[in-house]
Amino acid sequence: MKQLSHYTRTFALALVLGVLGSLGPASVMAQAPAAQKSKVVFQVSDGESRKWELALNNVRNVIKDLGKDNIEVEIVAYGPGIDMFKFESPVASRIDEVIKMGAHVVICENTMRAQKITKSDMLDNLGYVEAGVTQLIRRQQQGYAYIRP
Amino acid sequence: MKQLSHYTRTFALALVLGVLGSLGPASVMAQAPAAQKSKVVFQVSDGESRKWELALNNVRNVIKDLGKDNIEVEIVAYGPGIDMFKFESPVASRIDEVIKMGAHVVICENTMRAQKITKSDMLDNLGYVEAGVTQLIRRQQQGYAYIRP
Amino acid sequence: MKQLSHYTRTFALALVLGVLGSLGPASVMAQAPAAQKSKVVFQVSDGESRKWELALNNVRNVIKDLGKDNIEVEIVAYGPGIDMFKFESPVASRIDEVIKMGAHVVICENTMRAQKITKSDMLDNLGYVEAGVTQLIRRQQQGYAYIRP
Repeated sequence: MKQLSHYTRTFALALVLGVLGSLGPASVMAQAPAAQKSKVVFQVSDGESRKWELALNNVRNVIKDLGKDNIEVEIVAYGPGIDMFKFESPVASRIDEVIKMGAHVVICENTMRAQKITKSDMLDNLGYVEAGVTQLIRRQQQGYAYIRP
Repeated sequence: MKQLSHYTRTFALALVLGVLGSLGPASVMAQAPAAQKSKVVFQVSDGESRKWELALNNVRNVIKDLGKDNIEVEIVAYGPGIDMFKFESPVASRIDEVIKMGAHVVICENTMRAQKITKSDMLDNLGYVEAGVTQLIRRQQQGYAYIRP
Repeated sequence: MKQLSHYTRTFALALVLGVLGSLGPASVMAQAPAAQKSKVVFQVSDGESRKWELALNNVRNVIKDLGKDNIEVEIVAYGPGIDMFKFESPVASRIDEVIKMGAHVVICENTMRAQKITKSDMLDNLGYVEAGVTQLIRRQQQGYAYIRP
């Protein structure tokens, strides 16, 4: 009986540990949004330069407000929006500034093909994806907030 | 003691199976975004035809990029955006094309009432909802990514 | 043996309860979106008054459609969009109407500083945040749907 009682305690302990263990992932998931780094994707699809200024203000404000280490920022440019990142862009120095602050920029290659331009027509330090719109969907699925300035 | 040891093994096995079983749903939830079909809702609320062209390019690109069977696409039109789907729409043939590619279109009946128009003023093969904006909220709650071209 | 069989039943019951208990949180999480109040955040960042009208129509329609008690509505204004909520706003009476319907309005203080204006230049019954764009990210992380009219 004493022997049995030993097993009883062992089983009970194992059960408790097992249940705690099985609760773990769910709890972690529930807390994750608060504990993880914030993530945001900005869409730039307009050709007007005042929209580009607003997008750059947004990116700078959010990095300043939350702190570089607490926010992941990606800018996805497609359609008329890719003009913002061409070599002759009127906001080139400000783009350089937000990239130095930690923002990533991703350009739509579908749009580049339609406009018959290549990477040599674009600013430096940019990333590229097949379809900008697919990237926006993927990022939202990965928990990024979406902002269209 | 041998008998007891049989129960020990039985309990241990049951415990492991139970814990695995209880881990199951959490793991499935964590993997769900990757395993499930991607879903995206496009908002068309502008009256300019170049925005309509951009929206149609977006829809076509995402279906081509991910493959018809891997993406659920819904276009929700409201406000000035419903002009895109009127009988005399300049982009009618392109709308037909994306519907054939698998996209669904949903029109806001609140807007139709405000404009005093009926379904007979609209293109074929469209769906209708009471309020376009509520549909956009509902779809996001159902896990759809949101794109406003 | 009978004694043992008692423990067997006890363990089996504990195991079942444990597993059910551990399944609980995951099930609750899965059902939560349907059971909770809907939440939506509207972005107002454009300076054109027809966009303001559209935003106000959107807010009114969604509250009417879902019912005041079933939807949490927040409007976040920043950049050129804060003009909508200035004292001399052409849509002041309509803003008053949606606030009475239960909508909350939040203004970006970064924008106010850039425009060198104070709360005395703004309408009554508004809330304020440091950065409008951060508020939009926060709300999406909290499960709010995002609409940019």
